[in-house]
Amino acid sequence: MARPIITLTTDFGLDDEYVGVMKGVILRHCPDIRMVDICHNVPPQDILTASHLLFRSFPYFPPSTVHLVVVDPGVGSKRAILAMSAGEHLFVGPDNGVFTPILAQYRPLSVHRVSQSALFLHPVSDTFHGRDIMAPVAAHLATGLTIDRVGPAVTTEDCVVAPIPSPEHAEGELQGIVTHIDRFGNLATNITRRAVENFAAGGAVAIRIGNTVIRDFSASYAGLQPGTCMALFDSQNCLEIAVNQDSAARTLNIAAGAKVVIVRL
Amino acid sequence: MARPIITLTTDFGLDDEYVGVMKGVILRHCPDIRMVDICHNVPPQDILTASHLLFRSFPYFPPSTVHLVVVDPGVGSKRAILAMSAGEHLFVGPDNGVFTPILAQYRPLSVHRVSQSALFLHPVSDTFHGRDIMAPVAAHLATGLTIDRVGPAVTTEDCVVAPIPSPEHAEGELQGIVTHIDRFGNLATNITRRAVENFAAGGAVAIRIGNTVIRDFSASYAGLQPGTCMALFDSQNCLEIAVNQDSAARTLNIAAGAKVVIVRL
Amino acid sequence: MARPIITLTTDFGLDDEYVGVMKGVILRHCPDIRMVDICHNVPPQDILTASHLLFRSFPYFPPSTVHLVVVDPGVGSKRAILAMSAGEHLFVGPDNGVFTPILAQYRPLSVHRVSQSALFLHPVSDTFHGRDIMAPVAAHLATGLTIDRVGPAVTTEDCVVAPIPSPEHAEGELQGIVTHIDRFGNLATNITRRAVENFAAGGAVAIRIGNTVIRDFSASYAGLQPGTCMALFDSQNCLEIAVNQDSAARTLNIAAGAKVVIVRL
Repeated sequence: MARPIITLTTDFGLDDEYVGVMKGVILRHCPDIRMVDICHNVPPQDILTASHLLFRSFPYFPPSTVHLVVVDPGVGSKRAILAMSAGEHLFVGPDNGVFTPILAQYRPLSVHRVSQSALFLHPVSDTFHGRDIMAPVAAHLATGLTIDRVGPAVTTEDCVVAPIPSPEHAEGELQGIVTHIDRFGNLATNITRRAVENFAAGGAVAIRIGNTVIRDFSASYAGLQPGTCMALFDSQNCLEIAVNQDSAARTLNIAAGAKVVIVRL
Repeated sequence: MARPIITLTTDFGLDDEYVGVMKGVILRHCPDIRMVDICHNVPPQDILTASHLLFRSFPYFPPSTVHLVVVDPGVGSKRAILAMSAGEHLFVGPDNGVFTPILAQYRPLSVHRVSQSALFLHPVSDTFHGRDIMAPVAAHLATGLTIDRVGPAVTTEDCVVAPIPSPEHAEGELQGIVTHIDRFGNLATNITRRAVENFAAGGAVAIRIGNTVIRDFSASYAGLQPGTCMALFDSQNCLEIAVNQDSAARTLNIAAGAKVVIVRL
Repeated sequence: MARPIITLTTDFGLDDEYVGVMKGVILRHCPDIRMVDICHNVPPQDILTASHLLFRSFPYFPPSTVHLVVVDPGVGSKRAILAMSAGEHLFVGPDNGVFTPILAQYRPLSVHRVSQSALFLHPVSDTFHGRDIMAPVAAHLATGLTIDRVGPAVTTEDCVVAPIPSPEHAEGELQGIVTHIDRFGNLATNITRRAVENFAAGGAVAIRIGNTVIRDFSASYAGLQPGTCMALFDSQNCLEIAVNQDSAARTLNIAAGAKVVIVRL
């Protein structure tokens, strides 16, 4: 089989030992597993951000990569832990909505509830299932365990879904929101290129955000003068608001969740 | 032999080139060595935090893993550099107290003073022994050099010990301190589950920290309402004070070093 | 061939998915490639800092390592992307000055302009050439593609050079600047040990920075009392101003770019 790979997305931060501990558990199962950090700076308990980062990164990894997500405010409660195969990828994480966009969009999909305790690190704590359950299960899947061996199949309807907003048509506008602000201050939105094109139907449109109206789409950050506010489609084909060589979030005074509106001209 | 693994714990941070340089030196010795970051955000020169993170993470790694610790305010002075085997693990770092809990608790223990300069990267600087001495020695140990080859054996009594506090019995109470505050604002303490059980001797106890008294032990973060302050035993079986889905440090206004007291009811 | 290694230096930070995405693209090309992070916290668009970190780290890696640098404010413009071999190392990054010290100092040097689109990840976006062009080209070079296969050779005179200052002789002084401040608050300068020795010509010199005059060179941080300001040559043989166990930047109130002067006594 291919060399096993596990990606890690957590809210553990980089100041404590938690990420290292999970990697130790994984290496103890198999010292050949490759591990790649997606992000450990997910804000504490922020399921939507974890979901966003996972959804935008996993398709770039090789087939059979296991994507381990530990943003788990419900650790120790009765929330389930899921193992999923979606398309050619595998996932392990809590059933709290972190997989919402994958459940909605990827097929074929097979979801199992993790229950096979022989796979776990014992004794299982009530406060660190990332270490005791999810990391060991991810390691077993990465090294070839089939997903039906971790526990019973469940339907996607049984899974927790996070309130991830979709863009809406209202009052003759296409209304979306800022879903994420990256390190550069670029504003990611939930409005896809396809949604804009369908709405425009060949006509001209403008983008309104805060007090700013943008009348053109740029092809790249470098297309306008430094300091100019622009709209473009990001590397995932979603509408992004940016300021060349500066922060759009700071320049426009915009926070995540802010409304973004497409209007016909 | 098993695939060689080195873990790294430093106070180098993630804004400079120092960690990358040490990894280059290790890969130059052997490109097959796996390297795992435990933490590079140890506060500058904070030996106690490094000791805490190391002690809580190393047991999860495979046998023969080499744990490299570079928190080294004495670099360039006459402080020694140690290589140790403790149980099934190996360690390399400065003799400044960073290994205190391991020296106290793990057996069999073999400690050597690093002096075999043929192993070093030359010329050896006076300001970066992590690069010039500790990383090369760790790489040699990871790839099979026996520990007696790095320099002469020393006794544990010869090693520097950090003032890591133990909980004390005083005035009919069990008195400990907050040893570490993690990213979630959870308060780790130096009071083990066993110490609490011995103190309670089957009776009821309460936990006092700052102006707060907690009368129950919870099993997990999710056990109480969000925002509720709780006491529980963490994934390492030490007493922890937490607030479900919030920061106990901020809610209770507590800093590392704060007193935590167990009293009989 | 040796096990392939790629180092990564970016301004992507650690809060978003961009670094993970590039690593996925690299592993998809070849799951055996080792990847080592030099730094992802380069300040956004800060070509000089990226150049500084790269130049101080790459020589410690094994021959044939590919050093990938993605600090790329000009993404989507007509700026070129370069692949270079310099000495025994390989480099991939934008033609924006990030390679300035390598172009000046390493030989033999071979520079090519990346144009062979068959190597790229398609469709190529206008906003993330790190993912679509640089990561795939680095992966190909790491696994043995010869550099002449990525595009046409260019001369070093064709490459963009950053305004990296050199120390100057003026008014009977040797004048340099603070080029970088590390996590410990140590002040790196652009004045080499050789430059100081040539200037001193066997006589006594002092170092002036802000309102402080330092009359001796120390051998190590631990050589003076904690809190004392000192001058020493760092692990790269450049003049550094430090305060033992404290921050020179804070103690002396100095920022990057500040003037450092060597005077004869």
